[in-house]
Amino acid sequence: MDAFQDYYPDEFAQCYGCGRLNRHGRHLKTVWDGEESVSVYTPHPYEIALPGFVNGGVLASLIDCHATGTAAAVAYRAEGREMGSLPAHRFVTASLHVDFLSPTPLGPPLEIRGRLESIEGRHVVVDAHISVAGRITVRGRVLSVEIPASMDPRHPHGEAPAKA
Amino acid sequence: MDAFQDYYPDEFAQCYGCGRLNRHGRHLKTVWDGEESVSVYTPHPYEIALPGFVNGGVLASLIDCHATGTAAAVAYRAEGREMGSLPAHRFVTASLHVDFLSPTPLGPPLEIRGRLESIEGRHVVVDAHISVAGRITVRGRVLSVEIPASMDPRHPHGEAPAKA
Repeated sequence: MDAFQDYYPDEFAQCYGCGRLNRHGRHLKTVWDGEESVSVYTPHPYEIALPGFVNGGVLASLIDCHATGTAAAVAYRAEGREMGSLPAHRFVTASLHVDFLSPTPLGPPLEIRGRLESIEGRHVVVDAHISVAGRITVRGRVLSVEIPASMDPRHPHGEAPAKA
Repeated sequence: MDAFQDYYPDEFAQCYGCGRLNRHGRHLKTVWDGEESVSVYTPHPYEIALPGFVNGGVLASLIDCHATGTAAAVAYRAEGREMGSLPAHRFVTASLHVDFLSPTPLGPPLEIRGRLESIEGRHVVVDAHISVAGRITVRGRVLSVEIPASMDPRHPHGEAPAKA
């Protein structure tokens, strides 16, 4: 089964967290499992906070990309459209909240699961959590919004990107 | 001037976001500027969300490490102790909230600024924002807590870290 992120057009597939075309990125992949979306990620040994524990910023990033991917999938579903049909949905994060319930041990794969909380126009709220070996260590909530014209490479009036 | 993170003992200096001993990390450095703490970070060209714009997970990570570093500095100051004196303070994140006000262009250095909101026992709340070329694009609030025994490499009863 193709992941949500596999359906992004090339210009939307550059994300450091989940873009299939980002050579240095994490390449997060998300699929449906019934009403929940699921990603799996195994952190690199250097993605730590303290020895033996996954970095909180990395965990927040996983929640973030998991949620924006889920938002895109939700938007297609709400319109009764197949993922990959045009125009493409691409969401970005307006607000991210993450609670670190307990330290997340480094080593085993992390499972990220999300569920639609609400969809209203261009705004989608996804609740998500991260578990390791069946134990939830992180909970998050993300408000995503359909990509604004100023960020959209398809949009002729978008801001010119700053030179990297 | 040494940065807050330069005072961490070696066992606390492995963080992917701010540890001076993490060979793959971002090496965030934070100093006081009056009552505010300041870090500067220039994202890599691949740390993007969409072409030309900084990745939201990276921005959240910067807020996160900036706040935990500030929390440690605040804790020393509250005790009238010099940074680097023992026992060392090291904070980890309990809760992270980030609002993305507008897209953050890739290219110029990002300035991260923080300010103490409250300190109560082992809990420190820091408000932070990120600006680029003088314009604030991200605001965050972080609840940090002094490192729990289960994560603390100094603590004989800490959990054994999982193998990476």
